[in-house]
Amino acid sequence: MARHRRARAWDDRRSAAPGTYWLYGTHPARAALRNPRRSILRGSITETAWRELERDWREGLDPQIIPAEKVGQMVPPGAVHQGVALLCEPLPPVDLGQLIEAGTPRQRRIAVLDQVSDPHNEGAILRSAAAFGLAAVVVQDRHSPPESGVLAKAASGALDLIPRVSVVNIARALEELGRFGIWRVALASDGSEDLHDAIGDSDVALVMGAEGSGLRRLVRERCDTSAFIPMPGGEMQSLNVSNAAAIAFYETARARQRH
Amino acid sequence: MARHRRARAWDDRRSAAPGTYWLYGTHPARAALRNPRRSILRGSITETAWRELERDWREGLDPQIIPAEKVGQMVPPGAVHQGVALLCEPLPPVDLGQLIEAGTPRQRRIAVLDQVSDPHNEGAILRSAAAFGLAAVVVQDRHSPPESGVLAKAASGALDLIPRVSVVNIARALEELGRFGIWRVALASDGSEDLHDAIGDSDVALVMGAEGSGLRRLVRERCDTSAFIPMPGGEMQSLNVSNAAAIAFYETARARQRH
Repeated sequence: MARHRRARAWDDRRSAAPGTYWLYGTHPARAALRNPRRSILRGSITETAWRELERDWREGLDPQIIPAEKVGQMVPPGAVHQGVALLCEPLPPVDLGQLIEAGTPRQRRIAVLDQVSDPHNEGAILRSAAAFGLAAVVVQDRHSPPESGVLAKAASGALDLIPRVSVVNIARALEELGRFGIWRVALASDGSEDLHDAIGDSDVALVMGAEGSGLRRLVRERCDTSAFIPMPGGEMQSLNVSNAAAIAFYETARARQRH
Repeated sequence: MARHRRARAWDDRRSAAPGTYWLYGTHPARAALRNPRRSILRGSITETAWRELERDWREGLDPQIIPAEKVGQMVPPGAVHQGVALLCEPLPPVDLGQLIEAGTPRQRRIAVLDQVSDPHNEGAILRSAAAFGLAAVVVQDRHSPPESGVLAKAASGALDLIPRVSVVNIARALEELGRFGIWRVALASDGSEDLHDAIGDSDVALVMGAEGSGLRRLVRERCDTSAFIPMPGGEMQSLNVSNAAAIAFYETARARQRH
């Protein structure tokens, strides 16, 4: 019996169709339910979580009311699912050019992540980008985390609030952004300008590299300038990449406030 | 034989004396080796890592040169140890009052964490605090992560660079900071002032709460003001706690630059 239950759980976790995944947690689930671009195949939820999410529940999606332990079988061990798991398809792809053309002029503030591979870091970056009103986050299809429950949870709903644009080649995406007149700023500890001075109120792409290795040369060469975050702390001269990103996004919001 | 090896690995991971732990990774190890307050009982290192850390190695500490797989047995599964693990005692306790009295006037910028329980978040906060030259990070002894290899790794060396002051009662620590004339700012999404306006170039304590629950009422009541980070993003009105902390630390460094 126990063996049978474990086999079921495994099937649930692996989910029905290839490519689908279980998205969990109250904030991610609510944002997914409200996102018309998001395809949801199944929804499993506890009585308690149902009371919180009922108003946002999607018409035509049958809520499977189950105990919390069963929800726990659909998510990674130890994951904080808060009583809800939705079996989702990954979001449909977004075209960078179309996205920029659709945007309001002077609101094209974009983050570009060069091989940031940790889903917790990328999730926190998506969340900050949404909080500070950026237009999109561009990632490389390889060397970035796959869309997953872990990524969605770290983003706390932002995965369904801000376009995540997956591109084959970051350098080429930067060329495209340049053709749209977007000022490309590479964040680097040895950058040539103070971040505060490098960012104005106009369109800007903030380009950030992986921790440790930093920006690749070919990516950095496609940028118009490079900027550093001044750190008066002495020995410690680097930040967690999501922390650096949050500061950069905050500065773009401040710059627009000032102008 | 395999069983025997696994038993050894378990012993190594649990380490010799209670309270000790394995600290790993190049940056954390270098900072620990250089920290005179840090007691190191054993050091295990690969040939490759030894070439990088030899100059920083501590006199009297015997380097056990071992293969990478053996280093891997001393750290949590999957941890990025970069070929080095040091068996450490936790750092000796720091007294808050003594620390403040020893500090230069007008350099008393302190972070206070109210029940931030995730070691990755606290580690990133320690790292940012060190980068922006804060004087200390205050945590509650309960409801904060124990000193560990995971915390040290997330802090990327900052655990040995910035004093981490563990207190029994956060509200009482805030009273003490108040007696020293330190302006106590509670970070909260419903704060009364813009963060930018709430921070001057004088002594400041930045008080941050756990994600989800936020600051406890008794803690918030001990602060002189509350401040919010303006987020023009609309629906997303919160940040990962380490991201919010990084922005607040950055603002304190900017404020001192301006004045």
